[in-house]
Amino acid sequence: MTIDTDLAVGTSLAGATTTWTWQDVVLYHLGLGAGADPVSPHELAYTYERDLHVLPTYAVILATPGVRGIEDVPGLDFDRTQMLHGEQEIEVFEPIPTEGTVETSARVAAIYDKGKAALVVLEAESRLADGRPLFVNRYSLFARGAGGFGGDPGPKERIDPPDREPDNVVDVAILPQQALLYRLSGDLNPLHAEPEFARRAGFRRPILHGLCSFGIACKAVVDGRLAGDPKRVARFRARFAGVVYPGETLRVRMWGEAAGIHLEASVPERDAPALASGLLVTR
Amino acid sequence: MTIDTDLAVGTSLAGATTTWTWQDVVLYHLGLGAGADPVSPHELAYTYERDLHVLPTYAVILATPGVRGIEDVPGLDFDRTQMLHGEQEIEVFEPIPTEGTVETSARVAAIYDKGKAALVVLEAESRLADGRPLFVNRYSLFARGAGGFGGDPGPKERIDPPDREPDNVVDVAILPQQALLYRLSGDLNPLHAEPEFARRAGFRRPILHGLCSFGIACKAVVDGRLAGDPKRVARFRARFAGVVYPGETLRVRMWGEAAGIHLEASVPERDAPALASGLLVTR
Repeated sequence: MTIDTDLAVGTSLAGATTTWTWQDVVLYHLGLGAGADPVSPHELAYTYERDLHVLPTYAVILATPGVRGIEDVPGLDFDRTQMLHGEQEIEVFEPIPTEGTVETSARVAAIYDKGKAALVVLEAESRLADGRPLFVNRYSLFARGAGGFGGDPGPKERIDPPDREPDNVVDVAILPQQALLYRLSGDLNPLHAEPEFARRAGFRRPILHGLCSFGIACKAVVDGRLAGDPKRVARFRARFAGVVYPGETLRVRMWGEAAGIHLEASVPERDAPALASGLLVTR
Repeated sequence: MTIDTDLAVGTSLAGATTTWTWQDVVLYHLGLGAGADPVSPHELAYTYERDLHVLPTYAVILATPGVRGIEDVPGLDFDRTQMLHGEQEIEVFEPIPTEGTVETSARVAAIYDKGKAALVVLEAESRLADGRPLFVNRYSLFARGAGGFGGDPGPKERIDPPDREPDNVVDVAILPQQALLYRLSGDLNPLHAEPEFARRAGFRRPILHGLCSFGIACKAVVDGRLAGDPKRVARFRARFAGVVYPGETLRVRMWGEAAGIHLEASVPERDAPALASGLLVTR
């Protein structure tokens, strides 16, 4: 189990071409709980084809098929069962259309030595048919037990919300069947559906996809602070700080600052963190 | 606006070939509200690919693309805006597989003169690639204002439940976003999504698809009286007796009899009928 950054960093992953329709967009938004007030024009803009718009976090769904193949990267030998998705960042150069095709190319952008773990950063750029870049995804993956290879510890970046009460607090009810619905957008890991599989992984029952919470939080900020207009989002990022179970509540706290909107999310039923170090930057 | 039964009856409709995957099946079941208890093996059999089974009412989704083209049937000239879906019947010859392809051929099976309305019966047979018939759908459509053409009034068939208290009563909570989700299985009529369109059609807001209630009721009977095993269903039929709004409750009443399981469904919030003359016959 070794990490060789000279070999690994810069290596390309498989890449992929992804085509989507408005139905895929609506399915994704319903997977985040959109449409709970089905006569609100606000919610219909996420769930009905007329005047449909696209949450920027849909970029993750479109790019992810292109970041497969990490097991074939030379110099990146670690126990994949010990891999944790630590953070996700998206940068959106223009609003995502309601249908289209993107070509995603992905590579190992950096590997940091965090002592016990290695932090592997994958960067995926997705372009439209004419070559225009539409968005970039950055996946920060913790390879637990793979640190201590004498590498660069990386930047000590911290994105903390200001030390005051949040400007907005929004509670989002997560449906019991939310993970079963969200997974139809592509992430079929049985951890989010099969009770026995989840128990073997150490959870009392199937957990919500971290990227589902990520999308729910982005929608909450767009609705709470950007008048429901996802086209205004230029960047969104968050750190996965704890699990969420379907049927729980996601409480999203927001702070408007010059640099952007800071956010955190937690599960009030268990007083447990879900997302930390969140930041949404508008255009 | 005339009906010429000699010309119309027996005319073939467009027909269609339909291919489906397990994801389509799960989407359909989620569209009926399945998975509300996401750790119950019972509900996972509707919503998770391992040990997935298929509600027989999925036959409607698979056959409906093949029954288009009624406007081209000679001798069947009536105002399409006055057409109402009166009843639906399905007959399933073997359990529907979780993925596959069927070829549907459809025809005008009968036209009855009900006085004010004409009752048009479309019959669609769907076959597997090897020619084995998988299921038949019968659509009874009322063409309001098109009766009185001097035709056969048709059989006076009545399917009424026995005159006693039901054996089972099940209340199913319908999600506010249920119609927005159900329509992704193919019926994109804006009546089920767009408030202004629904108001123009005379409803206070978008209504649930009648065939969504039909599927919810079938699932309730399968779960309530057939130990959750949809493979036991040979026939299912019901008459559409009133509208259901997303967010309401569907109360399904069942009576076990020698001929099959009788059922009716209503909306307790408005004490209003939803489905009548329901019958499920087991194999």
